[in-house]
Amino acid sequence: MALRTVAEYVESLRDDREVWFRGERVPDVTSHPVIGKAVRHASIDFQMAEDETYRELAVVTENEKEYSRYYKIPQNAEDLLLRSRLIEAATAEGDTLVVLIKEIGTDALFALLAVTAGMNDPVYHQRVRAYYAYCRDNDLSLATAQTDVKGDRVKRPSEQADPDLYLRVVERRSDGIVVRGAKIHTSVAPNANDIIVLPTRAMGAQEADWSVAFAVPANTPGVKLLASPFGDGKSRPGEQPISARHKMMETMTVFDDVFVPNERIFLDGDTALAGALALTFVEYHRFTAVSYKLPLVDAIVGAAVTIADYNGIMKASHVREKLIKLIAYAETLRALTQTAAKRCVAKANGQVAPDPMTVNLAKSHFAHGYHEAVQHLQELAGGILVTGPGDEDWTTEETRRYLQKYLVGRQGVSAEQRMAMMNFIRDLTASEYGAYQEVLAIHAEGSLEAEKLQIIRSYQANGSAERVVALARKMATRQSTFTAA
Amino acid sequence: MALRTVAEYVESLRDDREVWFRGERVPDVTSHPVIGKAVRHASIDFQMAEDETYRELAVVTENEKEYSRYYKIPQNAEDLLLRSRLIEAATAEGDTLVVLIKEIGTDALFALLAVTAGMNDPVYHQRVRAYYAYCRDNDLSLATAQTDVKGDRVKRPSEQADPDLYLRVVERRSDGIVVRGAKIHTSVAPNANDIIVLPTRAMGAQEADWSVAFAVPANTPGVKLLASPFGDGKSRPGEQPISARHKMMETMTVFDDVFVPNERIFLDGDTALAGALALTFVEYHRFTAVSYKLPLVDAIVGAAVTIADYNGIMKASHVREKLIKLIAYAETLRALTQTAAKRCVAKANGQVAPDPMTVNLAKSHFAHGYHEAVQHLQELAGGILVTGPGDEDWTTEETRRYLQKYLVGRQGVSAEQRMAMMNFIRDLTASEYGAYQEVLAIHAEGSLEAEKLQIIRSYQANGSAERVVALARKMATRQSTFTAA
Amino acid sequence: MALRTVAEYVESLRDDREVWFRGERVPDVTSHPVIGKAVRHASIDFQMAEDETYRELAVVTENEKEYSRYYKIPQNAEDLLLRSRLIEAATAEGDTLVVLIKEIGTDALFALLAVTAGMNDPVYHQRVRAYYAYCRDNDLSLATAQTDVKGDRVKRPSEQADPDLYLRVVERRSDGIVVRGAKIHTSVAPNANDIIVLPTRAMGAQEADWSVAFAVPANTPGVKLLASPFGDGKSRPGEQPISARHKMMETMTVFDDVFVPNERIFLDGDTALAGALALTFVEYHRFTAVSYKLPLVDAIVGAAVTIADYNGIMKASHVREKLIKLIAYAETLRALTQTAAKRCVAKANGQVAPDPMTVNLAKSHFAHGYHEAVQHLQELAGGILVTGPGDEDWTTEETRRYLQKYLVGRQGVSAEQRMAMMNFIRDLTASEYGAYQEVLAIHAEGSLEAEKLQIIRSYQANGSAERVVALARKMATRQSTFTAA
Amino acid sequence: MALRTVAEYVESLRDDREVWFRGERVPDVTSHPVIGKAVRHASIDFQMAEDETYRELAVVTENEKEYSRYYKIPQNAEDLLLRSRLIEAATAEGDTLVVLIKEIGTDALFALLAVTAGMNDPVYHQRVRAYYAYCRDNDLSLATAQTDVKGDRVKRPSEQADPDLYLRVVERRSDGIVVRGAKIHTSVAPNANDIIVLPTRAMGAQEADWSVAFAVPANTPGVKLLASPFGDGKSRPGEQPISARHKMMETMTVFDDVFVPNERIFLDGDTALAGALALTFVEYHRFTAVSYKLPLVDAIVGAAVTIADYNGIMKASHVREKLIKLIAYAETLRALTQTAAKRCVAKANGQVAPDPMTVNLAKSHFAHGYHEAVQHLQELAGGILVTGPGDEDWTTEETRRYLQKYLVGRQGVSAEQRMAMMNFIRDLTASEYGAYQEVLAIHAEGSLEAEKLQIIRSYQANGSAERVVALARKMATRQSTFTAA
Repeated sequence: MALRTVAEYVESLRDDREVWFRGERVPDVTSHPVIGKAVRHASIDFQMAEDETYRELAVVTENEKEYSRYYKIPQNAEDLLLRSRLIEAATAEGDTLVVLIKEIGTDALFALLAVTAGMNDPVYHQRVRAYYAYCRDNDLSLATAQTDVKGDRVKRPSEQADPDLYLRVVERRSDGIVVRGAKIHTSVAPNANDIIVLPTRAMGAQEADWSVAFAVPANTPGVKLLASPFGDGKSRPGEQPISARHKMMETMTVFDDVFVPNERIFLDGDTALAGALALTFVEYHRFTAVSYKLPLVDAIVGAAVTIADYNGIMKASHVREKLIKLIAYAETLRALTQTAAKRCVAKANGQVAPDPMTVNLAKSHFAHGYHEAVQHLQELAGGILVTGPGDEDWTTEETRRYLQKYLVGRQGVSAEQRMAMMNFIRDLTASEYGAYQEVLAIHAEGSLEAEKLQIIRSYQANGSAERVVALARKMATRQSTFTAA
Repeated sequence: MALRTVAEYVESLRDDREVWFRGERVPDVTSHPVIGKAVRHASIDFQMAEDETYRELAVVTENEKEYSRYYKIPQNAEDLLLRSRLIEAATAEGDTLVVLIKEIGTDALFALLAVTAGMNDPVYHQRVRAYYAYCRDNDLSLATAQTDVKGDRVKRPSEQADPDLYLRVVERRSDGIVVRGAKIHTSVAPNANDIIVLPTRAMGAQEADWSVAFAVPANTPGVKLLASPFGDGKSRPGEQPISARHKMMETMTVFDDVFVPNERIFLDGDTALAGALALTFVEYHRFTAVSYKLPLVDAIVGAAVTIADYNGIMKASHVREKLIKLIAYAETLRALTQTAAKRCVAKANGQVAPDPMTVNLAKSHFAHGYHEAVQHLQELAGGILVTGPGDEDWTTEETRRYLQKYLVGRQGVSAEQRMAMMNFIRDLTASEYGAYQEVLAIHAEGSLEAEKLQIIRSYQANGSAERVVALARKMATRQSTFTAA
Repeated sequence: MALRTVAEYVESLRDDREVWFRGERVPDVTSHPVIGKAVRHASIDFQMAEDETYRELAVVTENEKEYSRYYKIPQNAEDLLLRSRLIEAATAEGDTLVVLIKEIGTDALFALLAVTAGMNDPVYHQRVRAYYAYCRDNDLSLATAQTDVKGDRVKRPSEQADPDLYLRVVERRSDGIVVRGAKIHTSVAPNANDIIVLPTRAMGAQEADWSVAFAVPANTPGVKLLASPFGDGKSRPGEQPISARHKMMETMTVFDDVFVPNERIFLDGDTALAGALALTFVEYHRFTAVSYKLPLVDAIVGAAVTIADYNGIMKASHVREKLIKLIAYAETLRALTQTAAKRCVAKANGQVAPDPMTVNLAKSHFAHGYHEAVQHLQELAGGILVTGPGDEDWTTEETRRYLQKYLVGRQGVSAEQRMAMMNFIRDLTASEYGAYQEVLAIHAEGSLEAEKLQIIRSYQANGSAERVVALARKMATRQSTFTAA
Repeated sequence: MALRTVAEYVESLRDDREVWFRGERVPDVTSHPVIGKAVRHASIDFQMAEDETYRELAVVTENEKEYSRYYKIPQNAEDLLLRSRLIEAATAEGDTLVVLIKEIGTDALFALLAVTAGMNDPVYHQRVRAYYAYCRDNDLSLATAQTDVKGDRVKRPSEQADPDLYLRVVERRSDGIVVRGAKIHTSVAPNANDIIVLPTRAMGAQEADWSVAFAVPANTPGVKLLASPFGDGKSRPGEQPISARHKMMETMTVFDDVFVPNERIFLDGDTALAGALALTFVEYHRFTAVSYKLPLVDAIVGAAVTIADYNGIMKASHVREKLIKLIAYAETLRALTQTAAKRCVAKANGQVAPDPMTVNLAKSHFAHGYHEAVQHLQELAGGILVTGPGDEDWTTEETRRYLQKYLVGRQGVSAEQRMAMMNFIRDLTASEYGAYQEVLAIHAEGSLEAEKLQIIRSYQANGSAERVVALARKMATRQSTFTAA
């Protein structure tokens, strides 16, 4: 097989998967008013592979076989940089919304490949390799389900009132296992072919049943995709230039005693590796994250510069101050993202991974500053973000003439131009889509606290902590009289 | 006349006013699916006057006549504190959305009373007094239109390409004036009885035509209310516990050659007083603002504490850290708001106004910190804010059982409890309503920059600047050898 | 007895106390080159009582007896406000350095009075009352030793490798106790008459020996004052306009088996009250702290305004921005300090104390922002803070003529004027004195973390936490469909 | 000629240069108690070239000739990275104080080489090349005098009350020029061989006399070095582990009608290039700056980790939080510094320069965060930073025994160890040396505002601004209905 067309991708989703939306079973996700939008958004990835502009970036040729670059196992910094650039380009085509239909799944595959390569029993690594080849050769779209519903957040899986609050193995058979539980925040699941399941945290010795990783097709019996309706409001192309065309679905993914055949079980009972797998995935995935945030922060800077110009305030000193803050925010993210690739570290399986410390610095920088960036952009735009007219006001003569007369910007900027940028800024920052981006900034790919923790851990692990302590001690004691005493 | 009932208020809005919504003329605002919600929200004010709990706070008895406390001209700190407390209570009844139907109009009246009291020609002050008495005695609901559409923001009214970009007098007759222009961000206009119009900035000597203030009924010919559809999506009571019940309308308020009779003209051509009027209104109105922000910040703190508890993370140190930041944010606002009242300054007409420096400190503190407060709350809540289920998922058996099983919190917290609080937090911070609050935080009652400017100006005006400079010079020069040289 | 003169105060310090400075026993603190400066600084308090300008503020007349206002037990908000104003005035006379010679001791006395009033055994309260009257009537200067040396900071007193790392009772006799240990950061001890000793933290049931409070004269046998030489460099009146005249001593105060007679033991073995006493002292003392920080922050604002003017940059927008930040910093502190007094809470013994939540808000606001305030001031001043000339360069003709020609400011500002202000700013922020203020901002009167902890604790204790949770729950559940299910 | 020895360097400074210190002419800088320390500190550079550990890094061999790497004209990213690494290593040997004796001069030479290469008249470039070769081949130490004394900061050179407030040409002769004026903040001038003089800003067409650049030996008649006494206090090796050994001199460098021969005039009257030269120097020099800040920020992190450990508080969550902030601060600086080198841009003369946007991001990141980093470190250390003992207290038996007993840290950490680190932290952050670093953070190599301005300018210049505006416009208008209308 080879790269799939958009039509093939769409068709592949008509497989009787069990998707629920607002209390109703969805008969066909591709024609659903909300999920269908997500399908079309996800198609960007397949389109780019066919598009001359992107083909070289989007497609890899190896041994005369072509496959999507997302599946390229990174073997050096250059591979990571190209992957990053592809993710950035696809997200720009998604008008700031990441496509993710291959990004997150390959992050999971890279983690599985690296972690299983180190296991004593080679069977798991062989299964992963086979599954990786299957996905790549069939140009599969993939979701990754990691976050458990968790119940009491301070308790371990085995301590929860209900053991199912973390997904677990409830039965082991000769031909496979039966799993039960629910994962939340599973992005793109309703329009992915397969779902890869990973543990969400490190496990204790007594938590073998929760130490499980596997993959299943989305239409596997017992897999129930409870789609979130968030952001399902009626969208108008003028008022919502982004979200009228782009959507990502999120599900609570219920595994109601789902059977997983042996060849798709990638971890089962190895409590020591559960945490390593969770973490390795996250390190790859945070690099994906900082890559797909670049068009978002660039769009914020670009919109800020444009609307400041349209409003005629470019020369005000406080405006320049805010633009500089936004530029520094965006460009520090870009510099750290590139540095994370360039400082890549070797993993098992001949792979590299982005430098953990740098990627967490990048992600943490992005996540901590996002709400402030939104604040600056909203400030530069003006209150009309939430008091402006609707699309129909532009098509009714009695109202349009007032809009055209009164909503102009500085000389040379028509009301239409200015309000188009205003609508963009509103959709980007002051809408359900904007709220989605705000919450994702904090919670997607791990929390702020998790990222901070990884910064200090990787600083210790890479020898930096030891180095600076030695430096400080040397400086402190060179001339100290009393220490010689 | 006396205090009006809700029914009287609602009935008074059926006056054939020209309101446009999504390109269509609205025949009756009270029964409109969106504006009707705003009417019901505004009714809170009339309800409270009838409610035993609030009656003492909401109603003033003077010379055996009862009237709404909003109309009480503040004569001391206590009056300001009671006004603040009433605004806070009404907003709490509005579930964090200010009612504003009398707040903003009385802020305008207090400014008009104080500023006209200082004019040489007593006629304007007499007109304002008469109009004030009329509004108070008829328990009127009032909008205030101040912000002009402005065109090029760095140019003065008289420098704009189109002179109408700031509202102005286009004709002067013996019985009144004709005005033209458009005001934006006019809150509550579609459901207010009258609209008070104020200049938005200081004027130059050549800008007599733009130096105009007046009041007209909302149904005056030529007054066109172009209502913003922002936040008009279908609302579900579970998913949107706030915005399904509460709404404030914003309009672009067009004055298409509107005639204003002499008795309603409060300023005309007095360029020196235009700025004073704009500023005095803003100082009163910022005190209203910080008062109505209190239930909003309290709700944020309360929701943060509750959801942290539900999630089982109350004892995590980073959680405590964020709660402390939120508490400090809310309580510093409260302390500054109270201090602004207690330090009130005397104005003409026997009135007092909140201390300008302190009220701007309060507003600026609130405005600069709001997005960060939202960030903290969203972080404590979790990503499920934007990936959670919809109302219908709770009424369908096939989905509800999974929600009930899997969305529980710490032991003792059911999925229903936890998700109700989650929905509240989403509506408060991650929705169109949330976006409205974010943008209002920055832009309502003047921009961040305007507030900062007033801090330094009032610090200079109240003698503080002089005091600290003298202090520093005294300390610096006491012992300086060379200055004696 | 009555108020003491400066001469009487100075004479009273010649009592053969055991003070060590740079490894040498100090024969007479009043004539010591460094400690003598601290004695003269402390004399400000006695001078003010004799000075017509301050007499009314500094002296209280009760039953025809005069005594220092510092000793006035606060019985209402007004008492606290006057105490605050006196502390502010004295610190302004100290050119930003607090006098403290009565402030900290009376904070300790107020805490002792309030806490012992609640004890079952009335003897302790009687002792405190007697001691309080003795101090007041003899116009005593007092140090307060609270912070133990602590060893391993995460271990309790009883868990330390050496039990003496927290001061403790090592022997109990019929006529008194013998104590051993060392307190650090004991301000003004070398020039105080008595030293009051308080526990530094809450104690466990097994920590009776560490639950001790008492007072002793500074010359009690076994009391060894190891004075810190920090800031003892040669000072020139031009280069160091503050620190050439003002100094506060800090000691490690060693109790090498010191006998304390019964009438000076205020707590012994009551483990439950040790924490209450520590905390009550701190709440009084933090109010003292925010009061004495006011001249410091005012001096920063005043110096910033002056030097910006001298440098000719007053109109630069970034300069205005920084001035506004400094003003907001200073004035928010002032507003919170006043509010803490106005919201005072009742304690035992008929006293009031500043509102704990507000005083901790105030202190935390000050402490967190101090380094940033220094940064802004240093930025406005310029690099010449640390590259400028010395006093002698102004008295040598060959160099002075260049200084006079080249170090001028904007037109009208001579080099002498500008450099006098520059010297003041350097002494305030870029010197050992400046460093002292920086470190004190963070560590004096409790750490940043301790203050934050008290904010949340007092927010819970005063009912606010309960109130906002109830508010959020009410708002969240009013319309929730599924919770009714 | 070749690399010089320390002795040769020291000897070369005995040239009768006119240096003034505290009003007295200094007969020999090498034996002066304060300046001599600076001479020894500067010798680090010469020592490293002889030291086996550093030789490869410190010395370049080209055409069989050896010279100091500082003089290596950067031709690619690798050259910049090695230069950065050398500066970092030298500053680490300087215990956080930059050596600068060749760093700043070569920054000036690189700027002169690049800017003069673009001039029509080739004579200037030839002069610079000759002077560069002379400096390199004689292993010269160099100061660079750029900042003028400036008078009224908002006025241009030609607008000042005294035209000498910016250095200018007062006479032009056939064999050279005569210059007059004063530069401030001239680092290392008293112990440099030559002084390179550059303009401090862009000049207007009428400012030909101020558009001048040249070099002169430090002992040229009329050159008067007024050395700042800042930080000249008595230093003890225990209390001041850094500043007892390391010192950098700063001078006001007066040019009292100094003659400059033609071959050392590098710019004269070319008003268009004055600004380019000032800016190019600054871009090179800011890269030097961020390189030499690395040991400083590393020492802060290292000291923070060490003292937190010694105090026994490593596991406290707020401690971890602060350590993470410090790590992120340091490592973001390192990543940006490296990225600035890797993204180097081509200049005339076959050189490269660090990427201006990135180097300004790096410098601005460092400068804005320094005071906060100091705050965190001081907080982790404790108040004993400014209340601790002096060196003599450790050598006197009566005091030492108490220090040893009571100043211990967690188990296993002696008082000596803990106080050695405490002394280091005090010298680093709470001393005149610490103040010097604070002020340098803000003012050295250009102000915070200058760096911010360069961020936005270079963002515009490198095409980023155009790119993001195009991106935002494309996203905004793709689907906008009304713009098509």
